[in-house]
Amino acid sequence: MKTEEIKSLIRDIYDFPKKGIIFRDITTLLKDADGLKMAVDAITDAVKDLDFDYVVAPEARGFIFGVPVSYNLGKGFIPIRKKGKLPCETIAKEYGLEYGNSIIEIHKDAVKPGDKVIIVDDLMATGGTTKAMADLLEEIGADVVKIVCLLELEDLNGKEAVKDYNYEGIVKY
Amino acid sequence: MKTEEIKSLIRDIYDFPKKGIIFRDITTLLKDADGLKMAVDAITDAVKDLDFDYVVAPEARGFIFGVPVSYNLGKGFIPIRKKGKLPCETIAKEYGLEYGNSIIEIHKDAVKPGDKVIIVDDLMATGGTTKAMADLLEEIGADVVKIVCLLELEDLNGKEAVKDYNYEGIVKY
Repeated sequence: MKTEEIKSLIRDIYDFPKKGIIFRDITTLLKDADGLKMAVDAITDAVKDLDFDYVVAPEARGFIFGVPVSYNLGKGFIPIRKKGKLPCETIAKEYGLEYGNSIIEIHKDAVKPGDKVIIVDDLMATGGTTKAMADLLEEIGADVVKIVCLLELEDLNGKEAVKDYNYEGIVKY
Repeated sequence: MKTEEIKSLIRDIYDFPKKGIIFRDITTLLKDADGLKMAVDAITDAVKDLDFDYVVAPEARGFIFGVPVSYNLGKGFIPIRKKGKLPCETIAKEYGLEYGNSIIEIHKDAVKPGDKVIIVDDLMATGGTTKAMADLLEEIGADVVKIVCLLELEDLNGKEAVKDYNYEGIVKY
């Protein structure tokens, strides 16, 4: 299974960024050319038969997987960024993370009403980021066709947060 | 010229993030599927005939171009991140930006001595980030084969900071 090969290239780091957290370190996956290709191709396969206009992904690790999927499928890419990074008019959303809070933004003119988007991210933890992204996109009129996360931390039950969406996690922990 | 087509898709934003700065907004380029492909392909072309092991790029916008270039050429990808984001043992470097200061880090075990790397980034401004990345990579033993930035702000003379390297800027301002 490709998913087991991907998992075997991810490094577990205990107590980062806080005591009690096992951080799934994807830098070892990215450094392996075959691993990077497997991960990007798995996400590409998960969306390639869908009808959509743009890939959307969040700063910073979402960019790692979102952009090559856009490139592979000949779609445009739309970034969601941390507060204060996007230069034009934005809408923002504050949300809870596995540890802490954050604010993300999208350009108001990033989509036209009715544009179809897929969301790509590296990790589904509590689902806070993922749901906030879907909310932002819907607020500016996008239709969220599918959400794909490379890694899913099943114990945190993030799937519940996006139960109204077509969601797929590739590698489960 | 491809570079003129790329430039035509980049939006100029005045007085962001500070008064007097013209921010080159690449979100309009990324959203255009052909524009994204032209930009990634231009960087890919700039390095495809070189002998190297890894593509290195900095958080966050460097990831946008660095990863698809890695993927295209079948190379591994190594991220340089802002302070506190990488989970294993790192080395850090503080440097000046066009506006403000920043600290970037790389995992100490990201390369073996003698590994050949290319550095990809979206923007060469004063060259502060670019030179700091080259310094970090050399500190952990990498050989920096080439540095490619999609955009270059020529008035800021960042090229001077990396005059000892094989550097190429694709789109000049």
